[in-house]
Amino acid sequence: MSLDAILSRIDDQLPNATERLLELLRIPSISTDPAYSEPCQHAADWLVADLQSIGINAEKRMTPGHPMVVGHVDGPGPHLLFYGHYDVQPVDPLSLWKSDPFDPKVEDTAAGKVIRGRGASDDKGQLMTFVEACRAYKDVTGALPCRITFFFEGEEESGSPSLIPFMTENAAELSADIALICDTSMVSPGVPSIASQLRGMLKDEFTLHGPRIDLHSGHYGGPGLNPLRELARIVASFHDDQGRVAVEGFYEGVHEVPDDLLRQWENSGFDEKTYLNSVGYTQPHGEQGYSTLVQQWARPTLEINGLWGGYQGAGSKTVIPAEAHCKLTCRLVGDMDPDALRHKVRAHVEARLSPDARVEWDNNLEGSKAAVMNTARPEFELARQALSDEWNRDAVLVGMGGSIPIAGFFKDILGLDSMLIGFANEDDAIHSPNEKYNIESFHKGMRSWARILDRLASS
Amino acid sequence: MSLDAILSRIDDQLPNATERLLELLRIPSISTDPAYSEPCQHAADWLVADLQSIGINAEKRMTPGHPMVVGHVDGPGPHLLFYGHYDVQPVDPLSLWKSDPFDPKVEDTAAGKVIRGRGASDDKGQLMTFVEACRAYKDVTGALPCRITFFFEGEEESGSPSLIPFMTENAAELSADIALICDTSMVSPGVPSIASQLRGMLKDEFTLHGPRIDLHSGHYGGPGLNPLRELARIVASFHDDQGRVAVEGFYEGVHEVPDDLLRQWENSGFDEKTYLNSVGYTQPHGEQGYSTLVQQWARPTLEINGLWGGYQGAGSKTVIPAEAHCKLTCRLVGDMDPDALRHKVRAHVEARLSPDARVEWDNNLEGSKAAVMNTARPEFELARQALSDEWNRDAVLVGMGGSIPIAGFFKDILGLDSMLIGFANEDDAIHSPNEKYNIESFHKGMRSWARILDRLASS
Repeated sequence: MSLDAILSRIDDQLPNATERLLELLRIPSISTDPAYSEPCQHAADWLVADLQSIGINAEKRMTPGHPMVVGHVDGPGPHLLFYGHYDVQPVDPLSLWKSDPFDPKVEDTAAGKVIRGRGASDDKGQLMTFVEACRAYKDVTGALPCRITFFFEGEEESGSPSLIPFMTENAAELSADIALICDTSMVSPGVPSIASQLRGMLKDEFTLHGPRIDLHSGHYGGPGLNPLRELARIVASFHDDQGRVAVEGFYEGVHEVPDDLLRQWENSGFDEKTYLNSVGYTQPHGEQGYSTLVQQWARPTLEINGLWGGYQGAGSKTVIPAEAHCKLTCRLVGDMDPDALRHKVRAHVEARLSPDARVEWDNNLEGSKAAVMNTARPEFELARQALSDEWNRDAVLVGMGGSIPIAGFFKDILGLDSMLIGFANEDDAIHSPNEKYNIESFHKGMRSWARILDRLASS
Repeated sequence: MSLDAILSRIDDQLPNATERLLELLRIPSISTDPAYSEPCQHAADWLVADLQSIGINAEKRMTPGHPMVVGHVDGPGPHLLFYGHYDVQPVDPLSLWKSDPFDPKVEDTAAGKVIRGRGASDDKGQLMTFVEACRAYKDVTGALPCRITFFFEGEEESGSPSLIPFMTENAAELSADIALICDTSMVSPGVPSIASQLRGMLKDEFTLHGPRIDLHSGHYGGPGLNPLRELARIVASFHDDQGRVAVEGFYEGVHEVPDDLLRQWENSGFDEKTYLNSVGYTQPHGEQGYSTLVQQWARPTLEINGLWGGYQGAGSKTVIPAEAHCKLTCRLVGDMDPDALRHKVRAHVEARLSPDARVEWDNNLEGSKAAVMNTARPEFELARQALSDEWNRDAVLVGMGGSIPIAGFFKDILGLDSMLIGFANEDDAIHSPNEKYNIESFHKGMRSWARILDRLASS
């Protein structure tokens, strides 16, 4: 059986595959910060060379932002489009990293070996599970079992500004039968998971302006409007004391989870206690009346991602600052419309401004709707079987709290359904200091893709 | 008359005095930031040399922090202690300065010539009004009219940690009949002002800790406690919707202003509209039921001077941060006790913490009580007459919104009453970008001190 030989090849080549991943992780391809645009080019070049080394016709494709990597290879089976992203999140606060985020290492931990470094899990490690599965296929059989288009972007962590124009211009070249996306987590350790719904996202940012200049708090403390107090008051007004978002009309388009889906989720192996305790919480803090899992997968949120203003240095400064800043993101579910929601959030802030306060919005931040996958397609059942074989446990259809707008774009621009399968764990600390990816995820991830390719090719 | 000759000398020497002040302003003696300890030494050395150049026996005196400058000169009249500070506030946000804060310039403005630069008003320019008055006295008469002790510190903007130990150890050397302090403003342009009461100050800072690590807002947004939301909620709870501080027991020790004093203040020339409009406010925003002047001089405050947490860089980051930070200061009046108040503010925060949130306090920040001057001393009437002569307008006894703890220390440690006379204007932007000092303040300030010295010496 060639599948067994391919799986053995993956087992044998794990050290080499790990070395390749470490090499990719050493490239600090932070997409949101213009200071790192050169490493983003470098990461794209690295991927092009790596794909070419397994016989894939790959090239770097320039955009106004960071480049795309596109590769094509022929094969007998169905035409798959595989998507991943080579860019990573910023690393701040750097002081909380226990090792250099861009000098990745394999570490022994109580939970087994892990690869530690920025992007190990999100998404370089996940992306390479698919590439390495293809390499093993090629090594053992001399070819790939399906026709595959590889499509890697470098702006996923910064809103993908070049993605829609690029896909629109290259729609014919990127057409396929189905898209495979490896950028998601398993619902709990060892439980293979296929994402059936993803939350959407709305990003916004505002600056509150108060006095014309920074003021001395001894002279204007009292009669003077303080933008920091104004900011706190407005941010505090976003939620009521039941944990619900208090923005008028926020929940329009939100649907309750159907009972049968709820029952499936309850049996998915998700353990609320472990999920919360692993990051230092002893209890859930969200919207009352909904389980942690439902809050995470099927309820919308408004979260504050950054607040700042005034003096942050050593010592004290008796200042009333001229301005204060807030970065926020909403997670969207159901039929919530990001454009309508942006108006509601902004109206909420504007209605609460004191006289002499003025708000300024950042108009460069995007939004995307929630996505529900077409799980009736036969590929979902084939993948479920392949994953169950590999992990010796039934694979499950799960929701996802995160937002991966690419699935919506594939549908809207290319008419493609997507299947999201990932091997990350909740404790991978993606977007946080000390990000890691379990060697088990990397190894069994490669084996999982080999099995899925085998099933899809044979169908 | 030698006073006329001295005043003429001041007029003639104004360009040279301005040059000397510009030289002192070029030294970036920011005391709160350890990176500037060398410039603080430099500023002290500069002052020692300058005092020596007018025959004053001055020296730099080391402390565990920035040095003191102490000078002595004999004279026939009463023994005065003159206090000022050579350190300055940080300059951030630097981007809002229209010129280099440490490359000061004389500028023509619609309101006359000004000296622009950090410390021009607070307190290098003010300090030099007294030194230059002494220089003119010496130039014209060959001596000073009183026995004077000069005492300049370099930690006023960073809580004066070395001040009390230094004064305690050198109490005999620093004894005098009365202390003169030049670090205050005029109640309105052209109205010479003697401060009769000052607000005290309490500084505090806290960090709110939430999850063990920074989290992905797609995974934990909803069920996860967000320290930024927690911070906003707690900061918003510090005030009620009438502008009163909502901390339990906050107003203990606060007294209403007596009617006769209130009438004096109302006639002090303070113009609420100009005061507010000059910094971009169209109306007062403080405690309802009190005039802007009473809010500023005789009511306590709790102000937020810095808030920060999460991502502040370019673009967006979907993070729930592990911690959030707040710097605050309270202004104290009447008999409010800073130690008791610190407990009340902390208890307010601690009582409002959510489960899984933890607060950590900075225990290195100080407090000082409010101060009321002994205006019955004859020196106050003599100074009032001298100031009225110079400015052709009755000098007034005013309150001050700022906190100058030195007056309390002089009383407690040296048994000295203080008289605070300053020539700053409310629009000097002290502690802010583009700080300035009017040439009129500098010039008439020198002349005012010459007249005051003359009156005190002749009494």
